[in-house]
Amino acid sequence: MREFAIGVDVGGTNLRVAAIDTEGRLFEKLSLTTAVNAGRDAVLEEMCAAVERLRTKHAASARLAGIGFGVPGLIYMEEGKIRESPNLPGWDNYPIRDDIERRLRTDVILENDANAAALGEKWMGLGRDLDSLAMLTLGTGVGGGVVQKGRVWHGMLGMAGELGHITVDPNGPRCGCGNDGCLEAMASATAIVRMAREAISDARSHALAEAAAAGQAVTSELVFRKAKAGDEGAQRIFATVGRALGVVLADLVNIFNFPLYTISGGVAEAWEFFAPVMLAEVERRSFVYRAGGTTIARSKLGNEAGLYGAAYLPLQAQQMARA
Amino acid sequence: MREFAIGVDVGGTNLRVAAIDTEGRLFEKLSLTTAVNAGRDAVLEEMCAAVERLRTKHAASARLAGIGFGVPGLIYMEEGKIRESPNLPGWDNYPIRDDIERRLRTDVILENDANAAALGEKWMGLGRDLDSLAMLTLGTGVGGGVVQKGRVWHGMLGMAGELGHITVDPNGPRCGCGNDGCLEAMASATAIVRMAREAISDARSHALAEAAAAGQAVTSELVFRKAKAGDEGAQRIFATVGRALGVVLADLVNIFNFPLYTISGGVAEAWEFFAPVMLAEVERRSFVYRAGGTTIARSKLGNEAGLYGAAYLPLQAQQMARA
Repeated sequence: MREFAIGVDVGGTNLRVAAIDTEGRLFEKLSLTTAVNAGRDAVLEEMCAAVERLRTKHAASARLAGIGFGVPGLIYMEEGKIRESPNLPGWDNYPIRDDIERRLRTDVILENDANAAALGEKWMGLGRDLDSLAMLTLGTGVGGGVVQKGRVWHGMLGMAGELGHITVDPNGPRCGCGNDGCLEAMASATAIVRMAREAISDARSHALAEAAAAGQAVTSELVFRKAKAGDEGAQRIFATVGRALGVVLADLVNIFNFPLYTISGGVAEAWEFFAPVMLAEVERRSFVYRAGGTTIARSKLGNEAGLYGAAYLPLQAQQMARA
Repeated sequence: MREFAIGVDVGGTNLRVAAIDTEGRLFEKLSLTTAVNAGRDAVLEEMCAAVERLRTKHAASARLAGIGFGVPGLIYMEEGKIRESPNLPGWDNYPIRDDIERRLRTDVILENDANAAALGEKWMGLGRDLDSLAMLTLGTGVGGGVVQKGRVWHGMLGMAGELGHITVDPNGPRCGCGNDGCLEAMASATAIVRMAREAISDARSHALAEAAAAGQAVTSELVFRKAKAGDEGAQRIFATVGRALGVVLADLVNIFNFPLYTISGGVAEAWEFFAPVMLAEVERRSFVYRAGGTTIARSKLGNEAGLYGAAYLPLQAQQMARA
């Protein structure tokens, strides 16, 4: 009998649930909108109902190996609690794993969403034939995940892999974490919006100023569209993003000497505008990179990486238990 | 019968060889001066003669498990060659392991000296009861070593753990590696001398200017002595060192979430002058550090860490082969 797992990717605005088999074949995927405003209980209810649907439907033809969740925010791995999650207000310190296990009447595995994405990319993406990789997820914030010898590196409290909070410039813009000049403060969608507003007020981007004057919302997507349309001010913003990424990637290459570093998330759409600057910066800054053998590339699974990683959590746990 | 290993710590100016048993008891230590100028062959000859002496002397009462070497510079682990070693001119790309094995008629294990120091600290220093740690060695350059689950993390080519080349300030002083603003360019003995010269020429340290005018060599030891004597200019230099260390340690804490980060090397003597600034910086910059459980401390083994680590290399290899 075939085996499958259910993966859940819990986002601040989207919630996706998928049934994926041991070979990485996706049976079915459900996409829901997380009604964060409806409250924690409503979200958990809807999420578990979706898991239940997939479980019931596919349990006839394949054996369910387990259920994994990729959750935004810092997770206390042992306690199964979210420590801090800006995207899920009201969930802090809530024993989410116990709650889900009660609703689903089975054990589940919780993982930070960026760690899950890195694991997914290792399992079925660019990392398939590799042992180790690091992934940066460029979204509202910047997530990070480190996979070594096939497994997520969690560290002492499960807080490892916070690659978005590596310092790019110690005197750079203040980050939500309290540090100055984090990667997150210089390469997230939020940082791009801040830089776009600055470019507008300093008259450094005609196209962005025009769009804002016409009432368009200043978003990272707007900056991307204007960069594509040839606006130099918008392009300079992505060059700044690329430089920040290059500094951090050079650090990571010097620290880990991994074969692969990969980038996913919404901001990765603008790859063509930040990647050339980013790669030149890594080349210049890291002699380990110059020694060769290192690949820096856009994620193959993209937004699906977290979903694959969440599903792989119980499959990997089962493999390890059998080994 | 007791078992022991021979560890060799090859420095640019000092060469130490020790016989240490499986419990970490040091039987005997030989300290030689590396006659780098006499050429590679003379150094290898002298080094192997010292190893031979310890081998012959102790082989009667204990079984020799193996011989390990901590060597400065980048090492190609598989080929047993030194890729680049500023402290050992003329050794680049020389098949040092083969040469040593021919002279000693036995297999030996080569390791980067900073990696060996981290491993030694794990084995018999502050890391004794821990699984993982990182070590920074502040000397002429800044070395780094990462131990995870008891083993040195080498990465793809054996070039991992180059923690001295993490960027502190992307616009900071040029480093020998080609990057700008590396930790090595801001916290090594070499960087301290550079800052001292700047302080003298900008009249920011009366005591250092006076000493230089009196013909004293400007060294990091001089800066340390003047800081101890109360000179504010000299103390400010160590505050700069502390800030740079704090930025990099915050990065490492956010990346690894290890229980321990430790600092060794000659510059660590000035702990009292740089540590307060360093720790305040980490506290401010790393929310993972603020979550608790992280220790940042001066190495227990200090200059002996590399020697212990070198000896532990064959003992660990033997343990793993038996497991």
